[in-house]
Amino acid sequence: MRIVYVLPGPKDGWEDGDVEMARRGELLQSFAAPGTQVDIVDVPEGPDSIESMYEEYLSIPATIDRMVELEAEGYAAAISGCFGDPGIDGMREMLSIPVVGPGEASIHVAAMLGHQFSVLTVMENGVAPTRWQVRRCGLAEKLASVRPVILPVLEMGDDRARTLELLREQGELAVTQDGADTLVLGCMSMGFQMLARELSATLRVPVVNPAVVAVKAAELLVGAGLAHSKRAYMTPPKL
Amino acid sequence: MRIVYVLPGPKDGWEDGDVEMARRGELLQSFAAPGTQVDIVDVPEGPDSIESMYEEYLSIPATIDRMVELEAEGYAAAISGCFGDPGIDGMREMLSIPVVGPGEASIHVAAMLGHQFSVLTVMENGVAPTRWQVRRCGLAEKLASVRPVILPVLEMGDDRARTLELLREQGELAVTQDGADTLVLGCMSMGFQMLARELSATLRVPVVNPAVVAVKAAELLVGAGLAHSKRAYMTPPKL
Amino acid sequence: MRIVYVLPGPKDGWEDGDVEMARRGELLQSFAAPGTQVDIVDVPEGPDSIESMYEEYLSIPATIDRMVELEAEGYAAAISGCFGDPGIDGMREMLSIPVVGPGEASIHVAAMLGHQFSVLTVMENGVAPTRWQVRRCGLAEKLASVRPVILPVLEMGDDRARTLELLREQGELAVTQDGADTLVLGCMSMGFQMLARELSATLRVPVVNPAVVAVKAAELLVGAGLAHSKRAYMTPPKL
Amino acid sequence: MRIVYVLPGPKDGWEDGDVEMARRGELLQSFAAPGTQVDIVDVPEGPDSIESMYEEYLSIPATIDRMVELEAEGYAAAISGCFGDPGIDGMREMLSIPVVGPGEASIHVAAMLGHQFSVLTVMENGVAPTRWQVRRCGLAEKLASVRPVILPVLEMGDDRARTLELLREQGELAVTQDGADTLVLGCMSMGFQMLARELSATLRVPVVNPAVVAVKAAELLVGAGLAHSKRAYMTPPKL
Amino acid sequence: MRIVYVLPGPKDGWEDGDVEMARRGELLQSFAAPGTQVDIVDVPEGPDSIESMYEEYLSIPATIDRMVELEAEGYAAAISGCFGDPGIDGMREMLSIPVVGPGEASIHVAAMLGHQFSVLTVMENGVAPTRWQVRRCGLAEKLASVRPVILPVLEMGDDRARTLELLREQGELAVTQDGADTLVLGCMSMGFQMLARELSATLRVPVVNPAVVAVKAAELLVGAGLAHSKRAYMTPPKL
Amino acid sequence: MRIVYVLPGPKDGWEDGDVEMARRGELLQSFAAPGTQVDIVDVPEGPDSIESMYEEYLSIPATIDRMVELEAEGYAAAISGCFGDPGIDGMREMLSIPVVGPGEASIHVAAMLGHQFSVLTVMENGVAPTRWQVRRCGLAEKLASVRPVILPVLEMGDDRARTLELLREQGELAVTQDGADTLVLGCMSMGFQMLARELSATLRVPVVNPAVVAVKAAELLVGAGLAHSKRAYMTPPKL
Repeated sequence: MRIVYVLPGPKDGWEDGDVEMARRGELLQSFAAPGTQVDIVDVPEGPDSIESMYEEYLSIPATIDRMVELEAEGYAAAISGCFGDPGIDGMREMLSIPVVGPGEASIHVAAMLGHQFSVLTVMENGVAPTRWQVRRCGLAEKLASVRPVILPVLEMGDDRARTLELLREQGELAVTQDGADTLVLGCMSMGFQMLARELSATLRVPVVNPAVVAVKAAELLVGAGLAHSKRAYMTPPKL
Repeated sequence: MRIVYVLPGPKDGWEDGDVEMARRGELLQSFAAPGTQVDIVDVPEGPDSIESMYEEYLSIPATIDRMVELEAEGYAAAISGCFGDPGIDGMREMLSIPVVGPGEASIHVAAMLGHQFSVLTVMENGVAPTRWQVRRCGLAEKLASVRPVILPVLEMGDDRARTLELLREQGELAVTQDGADTLVLGCMSMGFQMLARELSATLRVPVVNPAVVAVKAAELLVGAGLAHSKRAYMTPPKL
Repeated sequence: MRIVYVLPGPKDGWEDGDVEMARRGELLQSFAAPGTQVDIVDVPEGPDSIESMYEEYLSIPATIDRMVELEAEGYAAAISGCFGDPGIDGMREMLSIPVVGPGEASIHVAAMLGHQFSVLTVMENGVAPTRWQVRRCGLAEKLASVRPVILPVLEMGDDRARTLELLREQGELAVTQDGADTLVLGCMSMGFQMLARELSATLRVPVVNPAVVAVKAAELLVGAGLAHSKRAYMTPPKL
Repeated sequence: MRIVYVLPGPKDGWEDGDVEMARRGELLQSFAAPGTQVDIVDVPEGPDSIESMYEEYLSIPATIDRMVELEAEGYAAAISGCFGDPGIDGMREMLSIPVVGPGEASIHVAAMLGHQFSVLTVMENGVAPTRWQVRRCGLAEKLASVRPVILPVLEMGDDRARTLELLREQGELAVTQDGADTLVLGCMSMGFQMLARELSATLRVPVVNPAVVAVKAAELLVGAGLAHSKRAYMTPPKL
Repeated sequence: MRIVYVLPGPKDGWEDGDVEMARRGELLQSFAAPGTQVDIVDVPEGPDSIESMYEEYLSIPATIDRMVELEAEGYAAAISGCFGDPGIDGMREMLSIPVVGPGEASIHVAAMLGHQFSVLTVMENGVAPTRWQVRRCGLAEKLASVRPVILPVLEMGDDRARTLELLREQGELAVTQDGADTLVLGCMSMGFQMLARELSATLRVPVVNPAVVAVKAAELLVGAGLAHSKRAYMTPPKL
Repeated sequence: MRIVYVLPGPKDGWEDGDVEMARRGELLQSFAAPGTQVDIVDVPEGPDSIESMYEEYLSIPATIDRMVELEAEGYAAAISGCFGDPGIDGMREMLSIPVVGPGEASIHVAAMLGHQFSVLTVMENGVAPTRWQVRRCGLAEKLASVRPVILPVLEMGDDRARTLELLREQGELAVTQDGADTLVLGCMSMGFQMLARELSATLRVPVVNPAVVAVKAAELLVGAGLAHSKRAYMTPPKL
């Protein structure tokens, strides 16, 4: 099974983009079951990071085009590499292979682990879009809260200890004040810091890493012979 | 008060695009109160018509850029010229003047006119996105149904009588079978056919024309000194 | 376009009722677009102010009778002059012209401006009825909170600075603690103090004045040729 | 325990009003447990029957006044004699003894008997208000449908067989098409025809008679020492 | 009318089980109206107390068997003696007489007394199951909160003053912080401490005792000739 | 990774139980990724098949006991072998390894594949419990319908063609009348008939097989290092 993870923008938007992309690629491969190959590709055009709805929209057109090519190259599933799942309905209209949204997959997994989950997001402006994303999944009833850690995406890799501390702080408030029994890391760059287990050990609740869950969800769908419904995501009539 | 209506694509996507754009511009002006000037502009890049989520996404980046320019030109409000309100949250992040979504405005007006409304959409693939749009407005409880008339956008102006007949057929089913007491025309090209009054007289329920309501909603907001909350639609942190 | 604003009780219930009614009439006219005439009338029978469901009910029968007369006098729309929209369904059963509920209109406008709004109401006993009113509008999902300022209606005009201060206090809590990004003034007497802009400038969120929005909503409906659905609000069978 | 059932209008609105009121009074007494006395009184002012929201509002002020007197006379509970529970929140603001709404009580009892219930109402214009009433009870999730039998209230007693037949017809559709497993008679005059058992035997689902349930609910509340919360239904501040 | 209250486990699970069962039996009889006989029986097999879902499940099979026997003995209604209503759907599949769930009945009664109620439960692990129970009743919209008093069931009778104090503490927080206007005692052993009236007098909101309400609800259903719908709770096909 | 699938009753309840259990065991192993071992075990006590809530309850106590033993034997995850997920909350209280509910997992996977799914259940009495199960998952908004095929569980393996035909019939109605874009097979015995791909090819929508998805979900959770939250499913206080 060959799966592809698509960064919705150019890797050159990061400092040492090649190194970071390779690092993420290795991690993604390490999450996979025996027999699964996970590739990582970027998209030549798009924002450096996605921290607003505006930037989500900027990233979509070129990412969909790239995904169409990747389906033609024979991948069994594609992962859209942003927690916000930008444009995932458009992607599904244009593709037949499963398109995994890491946000959607993580939200559903969290819903299976407990009664109420919280999502830890990046900045304050991510709170409302994440709430809408959960509603979109149909799971608003199980959302305890969305809490921002207030740490820009591009700084997330700079100081691992500080990132962990901020997540711990907001995660604890989610559990003790908002009633969450399960946490979701609401950003791929958070996920690739590989902090979920430490955080889970400290807070004593499951912590869902969207990077890991995206790979496993792709394996689940391909392994079960399932893809999104083309009755739900119809090919555009003019195409 | 100067309001601008933005076609989210190039007018050249239509046959006789100049004529049709001028026709729409005149209609928009005719909906306005004394003292309101309504201009119409197109966006140089984008799909010919929007009949899928994929095409919605294609239209957004250039439309937002155009809107930013139009705010700088001193318009008091902008109307996003597609019923689906594509990218309206991104637009609101980037603008301070009110951005009117004709779909959103029509849905709220319909909700004030009765207990349950139906939306008449274009093709079958528009049903699910329109249902999500109504949920996004927070008004799912008042939605009776979404029904497609099965008539491509670009053919809507070709045969007025046929368009009216298809709307009448689905509108009647919405009222008698789905329990709608109010109808919404779910496409700007439907709206610009100016069929709402005839339809309303036949079916004896209010029929909301999104083109008219968009202009009146812009007047309402500007007249009341209101614009979207920048706490809800924050300027992207990196900008 | 001639619109009438109906005080649901006798102006003599206020100290200097003639003066206050004239003052409100002038404000209402000032909210209108060119070409709109707004008249204000009172109802000879009813409570001095409406601060309970009991008083809402006392006000309704005579107000509906008065509205029926006003429709016969040729008004294009009627505004029911209480934020709670008492008896608005009964009014719509008996009238064919649009009956604007300032509460309903303000709630829908607030819903268009952000993700979550709060309503500032008068006394603690207004909290539950206002929550029901929002549910009635179908918009419970977008309600952050209802907060009372604890200031009786009849004292609201006595000390403008104090009224503003109480609104600011509760408005700030609504924004910082309840997550509101938009505020609604939940009482017509609050609206006629003309504090929305000051409050909005201080709290940096939109503040909806129901007196202004009621006039603009009436203009919207009349201008768009719309009135409530008589399938939703049927004329009583015996009449 | 002394309970009073309040007709929200003058008995003279009916043909042979004295006879019919006496007949209803005897039935009410027959529903009671040993030790309960049920009296019936009318209200001197109000509509002949309540078949619209307008008529609901007409009935409320005088009915509340009458109820206040009846509490002073020492009744342990009052039943508001209309399925629509008009003005029940205002009644509870003004009284301390339990005020039983037959509609509310029947809806809650129906919810305890199965998964989904339907309400059989009088005319088509009663459908939407009954749906709102169920939402008001917080039980919208358990409502299968509201179906009108299309038989005016004042004709309900004229032909018992025809009334039963109309109820059977709509009840059967509620069960087979709408998925109801329990039915509620949505009008007091329907209830006093004493058709619930026959209907239940035919349709093989429970049929809730609001006249019976109102008496039993009053006994439940008085017997359990419970009355409505004065924190929910506060005495109006000015009183 | 003969009603039976079924302890879902052996009375010997308690210290002095015979005494406590007799005490509860006398209380139950004291709640009844003239003409009602309430018996109490235990079930030979099952957990000592029910403080988890696991223990709920342990109690169900033998309790259903016992109830089937009791129906055959001619009881008019059975009360399942645990607030969590464990297995009530299975009981209703196997019985035709009304099976009263004290939790379900108390939740519906609370919903009739105000706008928002809180349930006081035993331990923290009871919070989530009680929230699900309220959803099951269809009344999630009216739930303010579930608060544990943190006092094991088997210690509840040891120190009446301490039990009252813990209930008062959490009840006050429910009212002042969560917005509850009505309280429900969420455990039968709490109910049999007979603290509701004291608590209600102190907190000035209604307090629902599930032991009392269960008896009155059984009287209501039997008195009204109602039992659960066998279309909702069908007899298992193989039986 | 060693996973165990637990039949919630004795295999001897089936004709040729040993053969059928072995057949299912081989299928389960065939669903697994390289490196996963799936064992199948039965529970010595319990009903022959589960076609009612009563039978669900009968199956739970012994199944939980068996699962506790299996966790001690070192399995990494357990699958509860009934679509209804009976007692899954109790199982999670008593176990620390992930307990996969095939119904819950299938419902969440279906929710990721489209906008609205239908569940095909066995008999009419399964409709309401399946609706509650979907609500329990928090996904009621995405449920189009539950439709029974009316074929007893124990006959499901007798005539493969007839089973397929009944599924096709109800599946087609779910798609064309109820608006489903995705289907779920709502019974493990249905799943083990291995009809999902044929059905999907005919109806052109994804069909979720709970037996397959349960194995893949167990792999997902174990592979991602996740298990249910012990804050959500606390160990019973007395244990």
